[in-house]
Amino acid sequence: MGLSDLHIDFKKVSIFEVGPRDGLQNEPDFIATGDKIRLVEMLQDAGCRRIEVTSFVHPRWVPQMADAVDVLNGISRREGITYNALIPNFKGLERAVDAGLKEVVTIMSSSESHNTKNLNMSVAESLEEMKRINEYAASHGVRVRSYIGTAYGCPMEGAIPVEKVVDIAKKLEEYGSYEISLGDTTGMAGPVSAYEVGSRVREQLKKASLAAHFHRASGIEFANVLVSLQAGIDVIDSAAGGLGGCPYAPGATGNIATETLVDMLHRLGLETGIDLEKITKAGDFAKGLSAYEHTA
Amino acid sequence: MGLSDLHIDFKKVSIFEVGPRDGLQNEPDFIATGDKIRLVEMLQDAGCRRIEVTSFVHPRWVPQMADAVDVLNGISRREGITYNALIPNFKGLERAVDAGLKEVVTIMSSSESHNTKNLNMSVAESLEEMKRINEYAASHGVRVRSYIGTAYGCPMEGAIPVEKVVDIAKKLEEYGSYEISLGDTTGMAGPVSAYEVGSRVREQLKKASLAAHFHRASGIEFANVLVSLQAGIDVIDSAAGGLGGCPYAPGATGNIATETLVDMLHRLGLETGIDLEKITKAGDFAKGLSAYEHTA
Repeated sequence: MGLSDLHIDFKKVSIFEVGPRDGLQNEPDFIATGDKIRLVEMLQDAGCRRIEVTSFVHPRWVPQMADAVDVLNGISRREGITYNALIPNFKGLERAVDAGLKEVVTIMSSSESHNTKNLNMSVAESLEEMKRINEYAASHGVRVRSYIGTAYGCPMEGAIPVEKVVDIAKKLEEYGSYEISLGDTTGMAGPVSAYEVGSRVREQLKKASLAAHFHRASGIEFANVLVSLQAGIDVIDSAAGGLGGCPYAPGATGNIATETLVDMLHRLGLETGIDLEKITKAGDFAKGLSAYEHTA
Repeated sequence: MGLSDLHIDFKKVSIFEVGPRDGLQNEPDFIATGDKIRLVEMLQDAGCRRIEVTSFVHPRWVPQMADAVDVLNGISRREGITYNALIPNFKGLERAVDAGLKEVVTIMSSSESHNTKNLNMSVAESLEEMKRINEYAASHGVRVRSYIGTAYGCPMEGAIPVEKVVDIAKKLEEYGSYEISLGDTTGMAGPVSAYEVGSRVREQLKKASLAAHFHRASGIEFANVLVSLQAGIDVIDSAAGGLGGCPYAPGATGNIATETLVDMLHRLGLETGIDLEKITKAGDFAKGLSAYEHTA
């Protein structure tokens, strides 16, 4: 027996590591730039090939990421590894381009309420911004990865019609994004919605790869990962140590821990290119940087 | 989309609640009999229909279960609910019968090393004991549920040949056990082994129902539950609050938390008959009884 019995049609999974950015961004105390660099080094030592290093968001909103350029300059960049930064808007893209980044990550929500609250734009306005960002990025040789937030549900609006998520994903692909990541922003996904949204978006994309980004939900997130693999999704986002979110706010839990994800994928017989022992150490280091207690 | 897209062929799952026994048995401080009774009452209030209440093991080995008879007599037994007790051997069965129980749970391992270490018998000897237990139970109108421990792997022997697990399950069914529960005693199951063992045993049983009993493993247990459902298993064991095991011993973590399991199954669109809010309260009460910190 093997992967095909479990309805999984590939042998390799690409893990997109978000620990240094999504994992650390809400930490209440400023984490030393050297420690952030050390975390990235441990991640690449463990075999991570795609790392979301930081964010070009205004320091007024996310002071933790104020050292974006210093972190990027401090890393000993290696061949074959992609270093990403989240950009919340066009201004962030310009800063990322100035810093010499070759790949950025954009973000918008599929929920009108959530998008308005977080980005102060309608979904249509965000899509216009994404088009502009993709055009500018392409003209500067920068690749774009795009998050679609609240893809599996929104705390304000409930379930988002799958067609709406599909429509946004298709537009982002058309604008040039090479990968779409479906974000379970507030931990609302269950295996049925994870499978439905994942498989519907997957079958509508022509060439873009598709990722799933779940947050911790007492373990259900790993059932969500499993059905996502079954839905044909071969990229999973995670953060070493399971950091992220706000541990004290219900519905905003941390990310899936990369070390647990690697363990599960290897048990499935899937290749990740990541060393379990080393990523576990990186996860322990990440947890040590956090002001919260993490149990993942 | 629905359950059939996820390769799940039924609409109801039977949850076998093991909190009062498997959950509490290793607690270091004696838990008041009244609190144990209160937990069982909360579980039946929440809709649990099958409860492993206690164990007829010698108090020298498990002092926490010394009040087995008092707990059983203290519960306001209700129509339609099955109250179980674990029996480690024939002597335990006699005590359970004397206490008026209508259902007992037996235990043996599929690993020779583990069975010898825990029960001081070879697998063949344990099977003889199981035969004798089933015969005596049948002649006293008592139904037998049977655990097969280390079904997904043994820390001493590694993977157990699936044929051996299948063989034990078939014999237990032949002796009269109405349900077999595959135990992941030390948390070694991954989705591939969970699916393989589960589906192979499932297809070889003629009339016995089949259950899966996983322990916590950073969330992977819920991927194991999902593939077990896909393998045709419609009974899952769990403990309110995720209690059980020894929180400080690697590989002997607590059980799956019933409240998380119910949440996941309901998100899947599966019926459990259990009220999520009430079972969460029962889980919180169970955690309050524990000397350990439980995060499930």
